[in-house]
Amino acid sequence: MPRYALLLEYDGGAFQGWQRQSNGPSVQQALEERAAAINGGANAVAVAAGRTDSGVHAVGQVVELTLDPEFTPERLRLALNFHLRPWPVVVRAAAHAPKGWSPRFSATQRAYRYRILNRPTRAALDAGRVWHIPYPMDAPAMHAAAAGLLGQHDFTAFRAASCQAASPIRTMERLEVRREGEEIIIEVEARSFLHHQIRNLAGTLAEVGRGRREITWPREVLDTRDRAQAGMTAPPDGLCFMWVRYAQALDWR
Amino acid sequence: MPRYALLLEYDGGAFQGWQRQSNGPSVQQALEERAAAINGGANAVAVAAGRTDSGVHAVGQVVELTLDPEFTPERLRLALNFHLRPWPVVVRAAAHAPKGWSPRFSATQRAYRYRILNRPTRAALDAGRVWHIPYPMDAPAMHAAAAGLLGQHDFTAFRAASCQAASPIRTMERLEVRREGEEIIIEVEARSFLHHQIRNLAGTLAEVGRGRREITWPREVLDTRDRAQAGMTAPPDGLCFMWVRYAQALDWR
Repeated sequence: MPRYALLLEYDGGAFQGWQRQSNGPSVQQALEERAAAINGGANAVAVAAGRTDSGVHAVGQVVELTLDPEFTPERLRLALNFHLRPWPVVVRAAAHAPKGWSPRFSATQRAYRYRILNRPTRAALDAGRVWHIPYPMDAPAMHAAAAGLLGQHDFTAFRAASCQAASPIRTMERLEVRREGEEIIIEVEARSFLHHQIRNLAGTLAEVGRGRREITWPREVLDTRDRAQAGMTAPPDGLCFMWVRYAQALDWR
Repeated sequence: MPRYALLLEYDGGAFQGWQRQSNGPSVQQALEERAAAINGGANAVAVAAGRTDSGVHAVGQVVELTLDPEFTPERLRLALNFHLRPWPVVVRAAAHAPKGWSPRFSATQRAYRYRILNRPTRAALDAGRVWHIPYPMDAPAMHAAAAGLLGQHDFTAFRAASCQAASPIRTMERLEVRREGEEIIIEVEARSFLHHQIRNLAGTLAEVGRGRREITWPREVLDTRDRAQAGMTAPPDGLCFMWVRYAQALDWR
């Protein structure tokens, strides 16, 4: 059956995450059910590069969609976007899936961004898209602390209890923190992440930003390999899945 | 009675504009009614620097609020933000209103930003915050066309039929267009604007961006002083009220 790659953007606030859930709508369900309209009425099957949590946004999620009919990528994108309305999900681009390609296992790099709104008053215009922290935050201190987490480590201390990954070893290729006006932006890149890893890192770096912990503390937490040592799990609102890189070339249309 | 200045941010999508309306909630109504909780139960009176239309956002609207009790600006900000929940309106800062100051008539400069999402597919994450134009747009051409509208002119051609202003003469101090990735950003500054002036300018510049009109066309439209000549009124979604400047110093807290 024809396999397609889709580049997805969605507002995570409208969904219980990527994966199908019994307690509310998921991006996967919206996509699979709406794709049925162009699949002879049969539900399509969608597999994602990253199973984003409830409330987590995406501008560059990559999904494999298997359908019965053949489409050009352009026509598939237009048809899906027509049927996906009014869900806050769009197909930014589509491609034929290369042979042997998997959205999940072929990924060589994934990038996420975490936004903290750092000002006394809560968000109005960006409500649901940022983590509001009203206390003064030291972004350079967070950046310095983040540097201690770069490279290959056992990230057990930053892993959710529910994490299904076989190994807690991950390689943090990029972890940068900077201030942009009222916001503090955390940018993260790795081949893959553990469940809640980025939100736990954000919650831990925020402790340094508030001055409640030393710059050396996040690395000390890492070395304990004990989840109970790290900071809180930052809320999903601030997190956005930015892009995925693959060794295979995808001819996005 | 004590008069205060408030710096407001709001998501215009939740309101029928700033001004009280019979057909739905307005920012003015939300603020005046919620302020009653700190005003001995009596409605407060709010006057805004700019009466934004339904769907238009603000990050730097300035409002004068008259109350019975005396507050410090810090305490007023905290109390209003507590009572304004869950409306998507926040008081970013508050100040005592200077003698003789009017949020509307004392303004020496106002700034707005208009965002166009220029890509084939509609917005998901920024739905309601951008004008989606799927056709390729030439931002440098729009910028060149905008330059022809700078300075003092009769803006009758870009004025809503409903505009209440005594004179159609306005001085465009800044009108810049640039591309930022998938977005085209229009930044506008003037002492004051006519009703729908910025949305009519955006709709007219968009015609140049799409290549359907020459770079010289917006200036020709201006010179006709005929509203029927200009482009469409761009949707409110893309417009955001950024800031207001006053000759009087406001001690924002």
